[in-house]
Amino acid sequence: MKTSLYTVTVPLFIKALGNLSSFIDKAVLHAENKKIDPGTLLESRLAPDMYPFARQIQLASDQAKSFAPRLNGSEPPSIPDTEKTVEDLKARIDKTIEILKAIKPSDVDGKEDAEVTLSYLPGKKLTGFDFATQLALPNFYFHITTAYAILRHNGVDLGKMDFIGGLSLTDAA
Amino acid sequence: MKTSLYTVTVPLFIKALGNLSSFIDKAVLHAENKKIDPGTLLESRLAPDMYPFARQIQLASDQAKSFAPRLNGSEPPSIPDTEKTVEDLKARIDKTIEILKAIKPSDVDGKEDAEVTLSYLPGKKLTGFDFATQLALPNFYFHITTAYAILRHNGVDLGKMDFIGGLSLTDAA
Repeated sequence: MKTSLYTVTVPLFIKALGNLSSFIDKAVLHAENKKIDPGTLLESRLAPDMYPFARQIQLASDQAKSFAPRLNGSEPPSIPDTEKTVEDLKARIDKTIEILKAIKPSDVDGKEDAEVTLSYLPGKKLTGFDFATQLALPNFYFHITTAYAILRHNGVDLGKMDFIGGLSLTDAA
Repeated sequence: MKTSLYTVTVPLFIKALGNLSSFIDKAVLHAENKKIDPGTLLESRLAPDMYPFARQIQLASDQAKSFAPRLNGSEPPSIPDTEKTVEDLKARIDKTIEILKAIKPSDVDGKEDAEVTLSYLPGKKLTGFDFATQLALPNFYFHITTAYAILRHNGVDLGKMDFIGGLSLTDAA
């Protein structure tokens, strides 16, 4: 695999979103075992002024699906933040992955010097490369990790390999 | 900035470790304001079977300082995990940043197809690119985010921009 702006972003988003979906499965299993409403996990948060689990998923989705459009000065595809259930949230992740799979390497590669503007940074711009490495990637992993941490804090049986997901291992010589 | 295996890893590690050091400063300030021992924050964790704040810092340091050596089949520089105080932990971060600053782009670039073996994956290998994108980057941000989350959970006055750090913004036209 060659290193390019596409290969270090979009496929990583797709993989981590798949892992995130499996976190939800483990949360559901935990709720069943404990005979609790899985909704309590969706609304759980680590601090009163941090977002709950469900919102972390929406934000991870937003970071991922807005990445390529921002490089191209177009509007990201809109998904209303109306998810209420685990099924809704898993569907949101699936839809986000579908959007990401439709992004072509040529939509991202070569956009290092694109001018990226963001509504929450009025009057300012940053390069496509800086947007990717200073904002998009760290922010995306922030929300995936925080979602994981919320579930771990609630006793859901997750481990580091759930966070990392599958690895492209081969046999060593 | 061009996208290369170096530019999407080492400078990101350096930046996030600088942010991590500033999390510690805010933790110290919080402890002073609340008249609590900052050591209680260093030992705080989000779940009984997750690592505490101090260990998250050591692990972020380990991920960062072992990255380039792993690509080159060499042993990462050793830093004993003996930090007991905020000063120790800040010194660990400073030392890690110093190690990272000494890494040349040529130590990393072009190593996409290097064979990377890891002691915890015996008999297996993965490519340099897969190591970077499937393990090193996500794992590094995992520990930075978890460190942040532990402090937030304890009421330390941190916000998302502390996590993101400075941005290379210029004035939009």
